[in-house]
Amino acid sequence: MKKIEHIGIAVKSLKDSNLMYEKLLGVKPYKVEELPSEGVNTSFFKMGESKIELLEATKDTSAIAKFLEKRGPGVHHIAYAVEDIEQELKRLKSEGFELINEEPKKGADHKWVAFLHPKSTDGVLIELCQERTPEKDKD
Amino acid sequence: MKKIEHIGIAVKSLKDSNLMYEKLLGVKPYKVEELPSEGVNTSFFKMGESKIELLEATKDTSAIAKFLEKRGPGVHHIAYAVEDIEQELKRLKSEGFELINEEPKKGADHKWVAFLHPKSTDGVLIELCQERTPEKDKD
Repeated sequence: MKKIEHIGIAVKSLKDSNLMYEKLLGVKPYKVEELPSEGVNTSFFKMGESKIELLEATKDTSAIAKFLEKRGPGVHHIAYAVEDIEQELKRLKSEGFELINEEPKKGADHKWVAFLHPKSTDGVLIELCQERTPEKDKD
Repeated sequence: MKKIEHIGIAVKSLKDSNLMYEKLLGVKPYKVEELPSEGVNTSFFKMGESKIELLEATKDTSAIAKFLEKRGPGVHHIAYAVEDIEQELKRLKSEGFELINEEPKKGADHKWVAFLHPKSTDGVLIELCQERTPEKDKD
Protein backbone atom coordinates (compact mmCIF):
# COMPACT_ATOMS: atom_id res chain seq x y z
CA MET A 1 0.00 0.00 0.00
CA LYS A 2 1.38 3.39 -1.02
CA LYS A 3 -1.11 5.98 0.21
CA ILE A 4 -4.78 6.62 0.94
CA GLU A 5 -6.17 6.97 -2.58
CA HIS A 6 -9.61 8.08 -1.41
CA ILE A 7 -12.26 7.81 1.27
CA GLY A 8 -15.68 6.75 -0.05
CA ILE A 9 -18.63 8.38 1.74
CA ALA A 10 -22.26 7.34 1.21
CA VAL A 11 -24.63 10.33 0.97
CA LYS A 12 -28.38 10.71 0.45
CA SER A 13 -28.21 13.55 -2.08
CA LEU A 14 -25.09 14.17 -4.14
CA LYS A 15 -26.29 17.69 -4.95
CA ASP A 16 -26.72 18.70 -1.28
CA SER A 17 -23.55 16.96 -0.15
CA ASN A 18 -21.46 18.48 -2.94
CA LEU A 19 -22.45 21.92 -1.62
CA MET A 20 -21.71 20.93 1.99
CA TYR A 21 -18.27 19.47 1.05
CA GLU A 22 -17.42 22.58 -0.97
CA LYS A 23 -17.92 24.61 2.21
CA LEU A 24 -16.12 22.08 4.39
CA LEU A 25 -13.03 21.51 2.23
CA GLY A 26 -12.94 24.84 0.42
CA VAL A 27 -12.70 23.19 -3.02
CA LYS A 28 -15.19 22.18 -5.70
CA PRO A 29 -15.51 18.58 -6.97
CA TYR A 30 -13.07 18.04 -9.86
CA LYS A 31 -15.26 15.30 -11.31
CA VAL A 32 -18.83 13.98 -11.22
CA GLU A 33 -19.21 10.50 -12.70
CA GLU A 34 -22.08 8.04 -13.05
CA LEU A 35 -21.32 4.34 -12.67
CA PRO A 36 -24.48 2.60 -13.96
CA SER A 37 -22.96 -0.87 -13.37
CA GLU A 38 -22.70 -0.08 -9.63
CA GLY A 39 -25.93 1.93 -9.42
CA VAL A 40 -24.18 5.06 -8.14
CA ASN A 41 -23.43 8.67 -8.93
CA THR A 42 -20.07 9.84 -7.61
CA SER A 43 -18.19 13.09 -7.12
CA PHE A 44 -14.51 13.58 -6.28
CA PHE A 45 -12.76 16.30 -4.26
CA LYS A 46 -8.94 16.58 -4.21
CA MET A 47 -7.48 16.76 -0.72
CA GLY A 48 -3.68 16.70 -0.73
CA GLU A 49 -2.51 13.47 -2.37
CA SER A 50 -5.88 11.81 -1.58
CA LYS A 51 -9.50 12.33 -2.59
CA ILE A 52 -12.92 12.36 -1.00
CA GLU A 53 -15.44 10.36 -3.08
CA LEU A 54 -19.13 10.98 -2.42
CA LEU A 55 -21.51 8.17 -3.45
CA GLU A 56 -25.24 8.51 -4.09
CA ALA A 57 -27.40 5.49 -4.95
CA THR A 58 -29.25 5.50 -8.30
CA LYS A 59 -30.87 2.06 -7.77
CA ASP A 60 -32.58 0.59 -4.71
CA THR A 61 -30.57 -2.58 -5.21
CA SER A 62 -27.13 -0.92 -5.21
CA ALA A 63 -24.67 -1.51 -2.39
CA ILE A 64 -24.86 2.18 -1.45
CA ALA A 65 -28.68 2.10 -1.20
CA LYS A 66 -28.42 -0.90 1.14
CA PHE A 67 -25.70 0.76 3.20
CA LEU A 68 -27.78 3.95 3.59
CA GLU A 69 -30.84 1.95 4.60
CA LYS A 70 -28.91 0.00 7.23
CA ARG A 71 -26.56 2.64 8.67
CA GLY A 72 -27.47 6.03 7.23
CA PRO A 73 -24.95 8.34 5.56
CA GLY A 74 -21.29 7.94 6.55
CA VAL A 75 -17.94 6.45 5.60
CA HIS A 76 -18.51 3.53 3.23
CA HIS A 77 -14.95 2.45 2.37
CA ILE A 78 -11.26 3.37 2.47
CA ALA A 79 -9.27 2.96 -0.75
CA TYR A 80 -5.51 2.43 -0.81
CA ALA A 81 -3.35 2.97 -3.89
CA VAL A 82 -1.24 -0.04 -4.89
CA GLU A 83 1.42 -0.56 -7.58
CA ASP A 84 0.30 -4.01 -8.69
CA ILE A 85 -3.25 -4.88 -7.70
CA GLU A 86 -3.08 -8.55 -8.78
CA GLN A 87 0.06 -9.21 -6.79
CA GLU A 88 -1.34 -7.35 -3.77
CA LEU A 89 -4.57 -9.41 -3.88
CA LYS A 90 -2.48 -12.59 -3.92
CA ARG A 91 -0.36 -11.39 -0.99
CA LEU A 92 -3.39 -10.35 1.09
CA LYS A 93 -5.21 -13.62 0.39
CA SER A 94 -2.17 -15.58 1.55
CA GLU A 95 -2.11 -13.43 4.73
CA GLY A 96 -5.68 -14.57 5.50
CA PHE A 97 -7.68 -11.57 4.26
CA GLU A 98 -11.04 -12.36 2.65
CA LEU A 99 -11.37 -10.99 -0.89
CA ILE A 100 -14.72 -9.78 -2.24
CA ASN A 101 -13.17 -9.58 -5.74
CA GLU A 102 -10.65 -12.27 -6.65
CA GLU A 103 -9.92 -10.31 -9.85
CA PRO A 104 -9.71 -6.51 -10.29
CA LYS A 105 -12.68 -4.81 -11.97
CA LYS A 106 -13.04 -1.39 -13.63
CA GLY A 107 -13.94 1.28 -11.07
CA ALA A 108 -14.57 5.04 -11.14
CA ASP A 109 -11.88 7.64 -11.86
CA HIS A 110 -9.82 5.43 -14.26
CA LYS A 111 -8.94 2.73 -11.77
CA TRP A 112 -8.70 -1.02 -11.45
CA VAL A 113 -10.32 -1.84 -8.13
CA ALA A 114 -10.92 -4.80 -5.81
CA PHE A 115 -12.47 -4.97 -2.34
CA LEU A 116 -11.55 -6.81 0.87
CA HIS A 117 -14.38 -8.04 3.09
CA PRO A 118 -14.88 -6.00 6.30
CA LYS A 119 -15.08 -9.31 8.24
CA SER A 120 -11.32 -9.68 7.91
CA THR A 121 -10.47 -5.98 8.33
CA ASP A 122 -12.11 -4.99 11.64
CA GLY A 123 -15.36 -3.77 10.11
CA VAL A 124 -13.83 -1.48 7.45
CA LEU A 125 -14.57 -2.11 3.78
CA ILE A 126 -11.16 -1.79 2.07
CA GLU A 127 -10.67 -1.04 -1.62
CA LEU A 128 -7.41 -1.49 -3.53
CA CYS A 129 -6.88 0.88 -6.49
CA GLN A 130 -4.46 0.81 -9.35
CA GLU A 131 -4.36 3.47 -12.07
CA ARG A 132 -5.66 2.09 -15.40
CA THR A 133 -3.26 2.26 -18.34
CA PRO A 134 -4.26 2.02 -22.05
CA GLU A 135 -2.36 -1.29 -22.50
CA LYS A 136 -4.05 -2.92 -19.54
CA ASP A 137 -7.47 -1.67 -20.76
CA LYS A 138 -7.10 -3.77 -23.93
CA ASP A 139 -7.05 -6.99 -21.87
CA MET B 1 -8.26 22.12 4.77
CA LYS B 2 -4.85 21.00 3.49
CA LYS B 3 -4.89 17.21 3.50
CA ILE B 4 -6.29 14.14 5.23
CA GLU B 5 -4.22 14.12 8.41
CA HIS B 6 -5.52 10.73 9.56
CA ILE B 7 -8.44 8.32 9.60
CA GLY B 8 -9.48 7.23 13.10
CA ILE B 9 -10.68 3.63 13.34
CA ALA B 10 -12.33 2.14 16.44
CA VAL B 11 -11.08 -1.38 17.23
CA LYS B 12 -11.85 -3.90 19.95
CA SER B 13 -8.26 -4.95 20.64
CA LEU B 14 -5.34 -2.68 19.76
CA LYS B 15 -2.96 -5.64 20.00
CA ASP B 16 -4.89 -7.76 17.47
CA SER B 17 -5.63 -4.86 15.14
CA ASN B 18 -2.02 -3.66 15.16
CA LEU B 19 -1.00 -7.09 13.84
CA MET B 20 -3.78 -7.07 11.21
CA TYR B 21 -2.86 -3.54 10.03
CA GLU B 22 0.82 -4.48 9.85
CA LYS B 23 -0.15 -7.21 7.37
CA LEU B 24 -2.61 -4.98 5.51
CA LEU B 25 -0.43 -1.88 5.10
CA GLY B 26 3.00 -3.55 5.19
CA VAL B 27 4.28 -1.14 7.88
CA LYS B 28 4.52 -1.23 11.68
CA PRO B 29 2.89 1.45 13.89
CA TYR B 30 5.34 4.33 14.41
CA LYS B 31 3.74 5.25 17.71
CA VAL B 32 1.52 3.78 20.43
CA GLU B 33 0.10 6.41 22.79
CA GLU B 34 -2.30 6.32 25.73
CA LEU B 35 -4.70 9.27 26.15
CA PRO B 36 -6.13 8.80 29.67
CA SER B 37 -8.24 11.98 29.39
CA GLU B 38 -10.11 10.43 26.41
CA GLY B 39 -10.13 6.87 27.79
CA VAL B 40 -8.30 5.45 24.75
CA ASN B 41 -5.14 3.70 23.64
CA THR B 42 -4.05 4.67 20.15
CA SER B 43 -1.56 3.51 17.53
CA PHE B 44 -0.47 5.30 14.35
CA PHE B 45 0.60 3.93 10.96
CA LYS B 46 2.13 6.21 8.30
CA MET B 47 0.44 5.93 4.90
CA GLY B 48 1.80 8.47 2.40
CA GLU B 49 1.20 11.98 3.78
CA SER B 50 -1.61 10.66 6.01
CA LYS B 51 -1.91 8.26 8.94
CA ILE B 52 -4.19 5.50 10.12
CA GLU B 53 -5.04 5.89 13.83
CA LEU B 54 -6.41 2.84 15.65
CA LEU B 55 -8.40 3.56 18.82
CA GLU B 56 -9.12 1.09 21.63
CA ALA B 57 -11.29 2.03 24.62
CA THR B 58 -9.74 1.88 28.10
CA LYS B 59 -12.90 3.03 29.92
CA ASP B 60 -16.53 1.94 29.47
CA THR B 61 -17.53 5.60 29.47
CA SER B 62 -15.21 6.70 26.65
CA ALA B 63 -16.59 7.81 23.28
CA ILE B 64 -14.87 4.84 21.61
CA ALA B 65 -16.47 2.33 24.01
CA LYS B 66 -19.89 3.82 23.22
CA PHE B 67 -19.21 3.79 19.48
CA LEU B 68 -18.14 0.12 19.59
CA GLU B 69 -21.21 -0.82 21.61
CA LYS B 70 -23.54 0.94 19.16
CA ARG B 71 -21.94 0.21 15.77
CA GLY B 72 -19.09 -2.26 16.27
CA PRO B 73 -15.56 -1.68 14.97
CA GLY B 74 -15.14 0.66 12.00
CA VAL B 75 -14.26 4.17 10.87
CA HIS B 76 -14.80 6.56 13.79
CA HIS B 77 -13.63 9.91 12.35
CA ILE B 78 -11.77 11.65 9.55
CA ALA B 79 -9.18 14.25 10.51
CA TYR B 80 -8.12 17.10 8.23
CA ALA B 81 -4.93 19.12 8.70
CA VAL B 82 -5.47 22.88 8.93
CA GLU B 83 -3.03 25.83 9.16
CA ASP B 84 -4.96 27.85 11.75
CA ILE B 85 -7.48 25.80 13.72
CA GLU B 86 -9.09 28.77 15.51
CA GLN B 87 -9.73 30.65 12.28
CA GLU B 88 -11.02 27.49 10.58
CA LEU B 89 -13.45 26.83 13.46
CA LYS B 90 -14.75 30.40 13.11
CA ARG B 91 -15.15 30.01 9.35
CA LEU B 92 -16.95 26.66 9.61
CA LYS B 93 -19.28 27.94 12.35
CA SER B 94 -20.24 30.92 10.16
CA GLU B 95 -20.91 28.45 7.30
CA GLY B 96 -23.46 26.67 9.51
CA PHE B 97 -21.41 23.69 10.72
CA GLU B 98 -22.08 22.56 14.28
CA LEU B 99 -18.94 22.53 16.45
CA ILE B 100 -18.48 19.94 19.21
CA ASN B 101 -15.48 21.93 20.49
CA GLU B 102 -15.70 25.72 20.29
CA GLU B 103 -12.03 25.86 21.34
CA PRO B 104 -9.19 23.53 20.27
CA LYS B 105 -8.03 20.95 22.84
CA LYS B 106 -4.83 18.90 23.14
CA GLY B 107 -5.09 15.67 21.12
CA ALA B 108 -2.82 12.69 20.40
CA ASP B 109 0.34 12.91 18.27
CA HIS B 110 1.22 16.53 19.24
CA LYS B 111 -1.87 18.16 17.82
CA TRP B 112 -4.46 20.80 18.65
CA VAL B 113 -7.78 19.23 17.73
CA ALA B 114 -11.48 20.12 17.51
CA PHE B 115 -14.46 18.13 16.25
CA LEU B 116 -17.46 18.98 14.07
CA HIS B 117 -20.76 17.27 14.83
CA PRO B 118 -21.74 14.51 12.35
CA LYS B 119 -25.26 16.03 12.24
CA SER B 120 -23.94 18.85 10.08
CA THR B 121 -21.48 16.73 8.04
CA ASP B 122 -23.63 13.92 6.60
CA GLY B 123 -22.99 11.44 9.39
CA VAL B 124 -19.19 11.73 9.43
CA LEU B 125 -17.42 12.84 12.59
CA ILE B 126 -14.84 15.39 11.38
CA GLU B 127 -11.71 16.38 13.30
CA LEU B 128 -9.57 19.43 12.58
CA CYS B 129 -5.87 19.08 13.46
CA GLN B 130 -3.12 21.63 13.81
CA GLU B 131 0.47 20.74 14.75
CA ARG B 132 1.30 21.91 18.30
CA THR B 133 4.21 24.30 18.66
CA PRO B 134 6.14 25.04 21.88
CA GLU B 135 4.97 28.72 21.93
CA LYS B 136 1.33 27.77 21.62
CA ASP B 137 1.72 25.10 24.34
CA LYS B 138 2.66 27.80 26.87
CA ASP B 139 -0.76 29.47 26.49
